[in-house]
Amino acid sequence: MEGRRTYLDHAATTPMRAGAIEAMLPHLAGRFGNPSGAHAEARRARRALEDARDRTAALLGADPAEVVFTSGGTEADNLAVAGGWEAAAALGPPPRALVCTAMEHHAVLHACRALALRTGAELREVRPGKDGIVDPGALAEACTPEVGLVSVMSVNNEIGTVQPMGALAAVVRDGSPRAVLHTDAVQAVPWLEVGALTAAADLVAVSAHKFGGPQGVGALVVRGSTGLSPLHRGGGQERERRSGTHNVAGVVAMAVALSATDAERPVTAARVARR
Amino acid sequence: MEGRRTYLDHAATTPMRAGAIEAMLPHLAGRFGNPSGAHAEARRARRALEDARDRTAALLGADPAEVVFTSGGTEADNLAVAGGWEAAAALGPPPRALVCTAMEHHAVLHACRALALRTGAELREVRPGKDGIVDPGALAEACTPEVGLVSVMSVNNEIGTVQPMGALAAVVRDGSPRAVLHTDAVQAVPWLEVGALTAAADLVAVSAHKFGGPQGVGALVVRGSTGLSPLHRGGGQERERRSGTHNVAGVVAMAVALSATDAERPVTAARVARR
Repeated sequence: MEGRRTYLDHAATTPMRAGAIEAMLPHLAGRFGNPSGAHAEARRARRALEDARDRTAALLGADPAEVVFTSGGTEADNLAVAGGWEAAAALGPPPRALVCTAMEHHAVLHACRALALRTGAELREVRPGKDGIVDPGALAEACTPEVGLVSVMSVNNEIGTVQPMGALAAVVRDGSPRAVLHTDAVQAVPWLEVGALTAAADLVAVSAHKFGGPQGVGALVVRGSTGLSPLHRGGGQERERRSGTHNVAGVVAMAVALSATDAERPVTAARVARR
Repeated sequence: MEGRRTYLDHAATTPMRAGAIEAMLPHLAGRFGNPSGAHAEARRARRALEDARDRTAALLGADPAEVVFTSGGTEADNLAVAGGWEAAAALGPPPRALVCTAMEHHAVLHACRALALRTGAELREVRPGKDGIVDPGALAEACTPEVGLVSVMSVNNEIGTVQPMGALAAVVRDGSPRAVLHTDAVQAVPWLEVGALTAAADLVAVSAHKFGGPQGVGALVVRGSTGLSPLHRGGGQERERRSGTHNVAGVVAMAVALSATDAERPVTAARVARR
């Protein structure tokens, strides 16, 4: 018997939404342009880019100027860890420690370990409880005043546990007032209101291909006055926070996929709550 | 009179080639998959990725294992400068200087300046002659044994001058035997045999949207035993040299665009030579 094959690995990657593909196509074909230029084609590309930024920002609970487009979740996480730390370090005496959970995706965990090696800072890896949830008390023990960066993922990519971000953020603000708080929200977007994460953290990383957008596109939300040193230097795009010619088709498609995901979220969340 | 508008800013970005768009579409729509997984969809994506790598490598005069896919030229340049330096530094006593030309694209120039600031190494910026060409004698003055990295762009993005890469490479090998030699070939692909650059340098950066491929995709060729520390850590893709879920549609389209560009090159080059 020929069986119907059902794809169940949406945590690895999702099929693109038809609307996202459709939105992408004109920017691949006729409507090309480099948004950093000055002529008509460039301005047209820039309008598409900034429209996508406005939509993305609104859906993530951020201002447009707070959205930094990246090549995906891994770049966003690495930018948050290295760039967030460097900016925090520039503001006063060098911080001497950073904190993450022991179950972070390697994009955060390995970035933190490399940073600790490079700077000599101490990395404190907080273990979650047996239920996969980080206990605010355990995080509080690690969050001392000399901490420059804290990273706690919103939703785990393997076991799906959701961290109590508001309570954890309060612990960080209390114990480590200098620290930049990053959350890897790459697996959170289909399930949680990202605005609540953006309200709690200083940096929030998302990846388009986890919610029906294309591979190779993501974003880092950089809240308010949070500093961020760039990983990629060059043309000074994204207000000097991420250089490189924009992937216009990609960010346009990400905005469409995010919008559709946001609209479906009440149903998605209710389905999960019933389990 | 209604005039026909002619686009003349191909140095900024190019329209995508029809064949590249066509090759991209199935990977955006039905044939999605994360090449890092183990099931049928993942393996199919991995086959497409590795096929694109084989084609890209052959067209760049490299082995498939020497091709590192990136999010574009800026990332490739930053990876080359920071990652090339760090790998060179790991091999012996810390190098104390790095060299680039004063007319590098900012993706190289600003990456070099940031590296010098961060490490305390001296940055030597070699000025080209009035003709826009770097004199091998001027480069030789900067290339002393304590140099860890040298970066010379193949073709300038504003004035189009082509550097004598073979002669310059000989100068680097002679004066700075420890140095990793990088060339930003982002503007070179339509005009020069990239294989000749790959034969001369240790690292070669290219960007798809400069030759009819999509924005947001590029590659760094990392020759033979050249070490390279990653900028993006995480899933360990690209043999630990560049983590992040692959942009499968993007690299497939880049390979097609590169192949078409390579086929046209004799005609393109002859047209330029006639000027």
